[in-house]
Amino acid sequence: MNQFNVGILGATGAVGQKFVRLLKEHPWFTIRKLGASERSADQKYWEAVNWIEDVPLPQDIADIDVNRCEPDAFEEVDFVFSGLDSSVASEIEQNFAQSGIPVISNAKNYRMDDTVPLLIPEINPDHINLIRSQTFTEDHSGWIVTNPNCVCIPLTMALKPVYDQFGLEAVNLTSLQAVSGAGYPGVSSMDILGNVIPFINGEEGKIHLEPLKLLGKINEANSIDYAKFPIQATATRVPTINGHLLSITAKLSDMPSDIQEVKQAIRNWQSPIAELGLPTAPANPIKLFENDYYPQPRLHATTDNGMQLSMGRLRNSRVFDISFVALAHNTIRGAAGGAVLNAELLVKKGYLNNT
Amino acid sequence: MNQFNVGILGATGAVGQKFVRLLKEHPWFTIRKLGASERSADQKYWEAVNWIEDVPLPQDIADIDVNRCEPDAFEEVDFVFSGLDSSVASEIEQNFAQSGIPVISNAKNYRMDDTVPLLIPEINPDHINLIRSQTFTEDHSGWIVTNPNCVCIPLTMALKPVYDQFGLEAVNLTSLQAVSGAGYPGVSSMDILGNVIPFINGEEGKIHLEPLKLLGKINEANSIDYAKFPIQATATRVPTINGHLLSITAKLSDMPSDIQEVKQAIRNWQSPIAELGLPTAPANPIKLFENDYYPQPRLHATTDNGMQLSMGRLRNSRVFDISFVALAHNTIRGAAGGAVLNAELLVKKGYLNNT
Amino acid sequence: MNQFNVGILGATGAVGQKFVRLLKEHPWFTIRKLGASERSADQKYWEAVNWIEDVPLPQDIADIDVNRCEPDAFEEVDFVFSGLDSSVASEIEQNFAQSGIPVISNAKNYRMDDTVPLLIPEINPDHINLIRSQTFTEDHSGWIVTNPNCVCIPLTMALKPVYDQFGLEAVNLTSLQAVSGAGYPGVSSMDILGNVIPFINGEEGKIHLEPLKLLGKINEANSIDYAKFPIQATATRVPTINGHLLSITAKLSDMPSDIQEVKQAIRNWQSPIAELGLPTAPANPIKLFENDYYPQPRLHATTDNGMQLSMGRLRNSRVFDISFVALAHNTIRGAAGGAVLNAELLVKKGYLNNT
Amino acid sequence: MNQFNVGILGATGAVGQKFVRLLKEHPWFTIRKLGASERSADQKYWEAVNWIEDVPLPQDIADIDVNRCEPDAFEEVDFVFSGLDSSVASEIEQNFAQSGIPVISNAKNYRMDDTVPLLIPEINPDHINLIRSQTFTEDHSGWIVTNPNCVCIPLTMALKPVYDQFGLEAVNLTSLQAVSGAGYPGVSSMDILGNVIPFINGEEGKIHLEPLKLLGKINEANSIDYAKFPIQATATRVPTINGHLLSITAKLSDMPSDIQEVKQAIRNWQSPIAELGLPTAPANPIKLFENDYYPQPRLHATTDNGMQLSMGRLRNSRVFDISFVALAHNTIRGAAGGAVLNAELLVKKGYLNNT
Repeated sequence: MNQFNVGILGATGAVGQKFVRLLKEHPWFTIRKLGASERSADQKYWEAVNWIEDVPLPQDIADIDVNRCEPDAFEEVDFVFSGLDSSVASEIEQNFAQSGIPVISNAKNYRMDDTVPLLIPEINPDHINLIRSQTFTEDHSGWIVTNPNCVCIPLTMALKPVYDQFGLEAVNLTSLQAVSGAGYPGVSSMDILGNVIPFINGEEGKIHLEPLKLLGKINEANSIDYAKFPIQATATRVPTINGHLLSITAKLSDMPSDIQEVKQAIRNWQSPIAELGLPTAPANPIKLFENDYYPQPRLHATTDNGMQLSMGRLRNSRVFDISFVALAHNTIRGAAGGAVLNAELLVKKGYLNNT
Repeated sequence: MNQFNVGILGATGAVGQKFVRLLKEHPWFTIRKLGASERSADQKYWEAVNWIEDVPLPQDIADIDVNRCEPDAFEEVDFVFSGLDSSVASEIEQNFAQSGIPVISNAKNYRMDDTVPLLIPEINPDHINLIRSQTFTEDHSGWIVTNPNCVCIPLTMALKPVYDQFGLEAVNLTSLQAVSGAGYPGVSSMDILGNVIPFINGEEGKIHLEPLKLLGKINEANSIDYAKFPIQATATRVPTINGHLLSITAKLSDMPSDIQEVKQAIRNWQSPIAELGLPTAPANPIKLFENDYYPQPRLHATTDNGMQLSMGRLRNSRVFDISFVALAHNTIRGAAGGAVLNAELLVKKGYLNNT
Repeated sequence: MNQFNVGILGATGAVGQKFVRLLKEHPWFTIRKLGASERSADQKYWEAVNWIEDVPLPQDIADIDVNRCEPDAFEEVDFVFSGLDSSVASEIEQNFAQSGIPVISNAKNYRMDDTVPLLIPEINPDHINLIRSQTFTEDHSGWIVTNPNCVCIPLTMALKPVYDQFGLEAVNLTSLQAVSGAGYPGVSSMDILGNVIPFINGEEGKIHLEPLKLLGKINEANSIDYAKFPIQATATRVPTINGHLLSITAKLSDMPSDIQEVKQAIRNWQSPIAELGLPTAPANPIKLFENDYYPQPRLHATTDNGMQLSMGRLRNSRVFDISFVALAHNTIRGAAGGAVLNAELLVKKGYLNNT
Repeated sequence: MNQFNVGILGATGAVGQKFVRLLKEHPWFTIRKLGASERSADQKYWEAVNWIEDVPLPQDIADIDVNRCEPDAFEEVDFVFSGLDSSVASEIEQNFAQSGIPVISNAKNYRMDDTVPLLIPEINPDHINLIRSQTFTEDHSGWIVTNPNCVCIPLTMALKPVYDQFGLEAVNLTSLQAVSGAGYPGVSSMDILGNVIPFINGEEGKIHLEPLKLLGKINEANSIDYAKFPIQATATRVPTINGHLLSITAKLSDMPSDIQEVKQAIRNWQSPIAELGLPTAPANPIKLFENDYYPQPRLHATTDNGMQLSMGRLRNSRVFDISFVALAHNTIRGAAGGAVLNAELLVKKGYLNNT
């Protein structure tokens, strides 16, 4: 039934490799095409890639010929995943969409575009309706859907139950981000071994905006009314491999009677896609720990195949109302895994068709 | 002139070793006695200590006989530095003070005591007047002075110029703390290699209170009127060796015209002890970087012999008024070095006498 | 058929936790009893354990009552796995064996005992015959089988194909060992972050001896004729979590015509247990890489569920004959996983009976 | 007297920065010119450099204009230090030598050239006589002297006392090398955090050869008779910042009566330059520890300003004769500091003249 031929754009990069790993075992999606830059094209994938995943590169994928990221070379696929670098994603993704090939993208380029869904299936599944406003092709066969920045995904998932029940007036956070978020080779070991870098170029601007689109409401004109509260972020890099940890303090609109009521709101929160049977959807999208020492990147980033959001340390705050920490695997839930889940939702909702 | 014989209590611990290292080259203070627990007593220091400093253990110190932490064994010293564990500091430090031996302590036990100065010489030098209210001995020969927690020192130093000029309404922070803050053996490598721990037991309570005493005013009754603003802290452990980095957001009482005015307040701030010629006082107590990637623990924790406070990323905040980061060496400025500077101030102010 | 009730001794330690994790999903073995020290006994497992595995503690195991390590409390199990600390393993394991409860042990205490198999199923499966010489019980119902030290397992597996085809005259190695090999809390983060320690207490003596027993031949008197060649080891600790890497140089008895012949010997080597269908046996027990940068702990320690031995950099040596590196997961292949595989072999060979 | 104007080629790289740091405080040498690639030229040094040293960039150096690495731009210097990348060092260093500007180089390009001294002042100071055979200029005013690879320096220093007294038949070693050895940005954090890489491209070939030139004797024809014994190296990268640790096993020509005799040979060894008063010469060039856990990169790499060679674990070996470990700071003793010491020797020996 749900068998699709897929391509991966930017297949040799860190996110591209994660797509390969996740899709290799996927029950619906079969990798047919791999796209990369001119330098890699016309090589076998194993020749072009510096494989950094901690599982062996599957032999059948290793032997695929890498193509340039041009729609002509991807005609046989039903859609593509894009792990393209933002320096090239704008043009390439547009080319694919205009050629009638849907693009499920992890790149930042179209995230804030009015007609492009910025999608977390558990948070704003109805935003996929924006696709109908896209005009890449006359017949709506080609379009783009994006997933948020790797901090914005755990941040927004953590805020959602609170926002729904109590409203939000202000959010302040410090992120402790893993090096895999910078791609490969990314952060120099000279910079980060036994060190912390208190700034990540371009990151905070995304954190200030993307959650407001994600928590926004789709209106009658099929556009998004953004959520309205200020977010202040300090993005830091720490010497962890995977898993972005966020330390968050929030001011609520309506006061809970006590902290237990906030905990209940989080624990009672129901994923709107729980019943859809999406293969990549985590069994427990949000886990709230009581152990003060949890969550930790090494222990909890890979829970539920790296798709679970972990929360902890939820408590009253002397400043604002509540403080807590949140953690998610930045290259799975926060990137490739999030994109795969997006594709699964789009299949279920009838936006993706196999041929 | 200023030659003093000093003892070190808790000399085999991590802070005790830092005292040894700092005092070995000190122009005023000469190590005469080393105190440790019963297990170490009656050994040579080199037998009792697992030396973890990255300079060789000085041979003359290595050969000192370790004593129990009893005042009788320290009669020949003018005062003692205490790097004692809090589990034993209360009784031992009291014993020394009652025996007429001043105690310059890094332990937390007496920090919040009404008559005990919690001292950072550049911040609240006048608080040493509290000593006069101490009653350990009739002749005031024995007393206790403490330095703050290793987060509270950089936090308060960073807040001081802002507090003086604009006032503070609220402070929210996340600390990224080095493993040396937990002593030795302290944090298990299994817990922290490539990981972050979002909680440090007992730490946040100190951060919520100590800065308010430090920024408080000594009143006519010779007690402290605490500063009054809420502080909310999330203390995390990261895999760095030395240097606690703080990500801080603050609400001001009086609005600066722009961020430049805040920067000027910090850069124009004058240390009240600049003219005293204290050997351990840093040439530049506060350094404010413009480079967004600074300060970093590996690059800046040891500036000015580990006594400088580094600040950076000062900017307007979408939540509250200003956000910035601050960094200091936790076992030098934040512990042993801070205590040595305290002793130097107390010498200059006539509280310590050599015999 | 092969359903067994098992107990775990030392269940709260690092190796004990790995046993819990591996056995939780095991098709033959069901955890019925958990044993630990007096301090942990009479608590639920979740209360007694500081869980450090990167998967959630299974709820049904969490709720098991922890027992003292006394045979009376383990009567309902068919056998026990021992992750006991060597300081207590001698007496406890003997007690269990004498009570008729077979012990599959990871502890070092009985490894070099003449009648105790030191077992790697792929290397010396016939050594299990030593069990018949054990006299813990008259009816041979109680006995002890051990797995080797976590360096000796990859070392001996790597040497085996070479030893069989060319013989060995001398082996020199340096190990780069992960911190998990020291248990929990084990190595202090202050000692190992950004550092190397050139010595591991007690380790080199095991490396010098255990491989000679493992490669020894069982003789007509049902004892082991040890292999005879000198091994020289330098054991170092490096800041990795899992995976011991060995740098090995070996002198051969018979000269291969070229290095390809050595590679062929390794690649053609056949596991003697390949046909037994043991659940924990890796599909490819030995993998020899051609990529000079492989194997690496982070990338390859977990291949084949952590049970594969990875080799690389095989080349002629200017000193002796061949140099190469070898890697295995120290707490799976090198400890708990090795013990589970031992148990599986003993089931297949009829030494373990379910009741 | 000994005041010299110096230039630094490759000044923005990791080694170049170390030259800046070491020379800033040098009593004889004053930095006058900084050279870098075209990309950096015509900028102020602070604009061109990504400063990674853990001390502040000195303000007067920060303001120097960076030049292209062309002799015309360096006319006012007495000689240059070269931290050039090997991809450009051959031509640039030759240009300088031919222009009559002596080059003290850390690059590998000319190390094995018959007329170029490969120099460690404590090991082979007489090799500087090779300079007389160089023909870059007719008047011998321009020439090149090199320092060895960062592993070869500690290796050869450690071997020297043993070689002199007992002779060497074979040496086998595994190096555990810090990331700073790869320059900046060098090793990706994704590759090395919590990991080991068992290969360093191009490294082992140098280790096999350079020590034989260093231990060689200058003959009547003013060329070097190389030492003759095989060296086998496995070079690995570990997650340390500074300090290469070597695990070495050696076969001796003449058998010592016992291991104490070897220890005495090392401890009695006298540096041939001890009396020259070179500012960068360490007080104790070789330190042999008895503590099995020493030396360690974090604790001992910076001893004697990073110029000391540390040894430890010296013991009889079951294979060959002796095993031991050695450690030196790879970017100070093993690179820039070694080059500065070379220059100091050349000053004392009259090869460098100030104008």
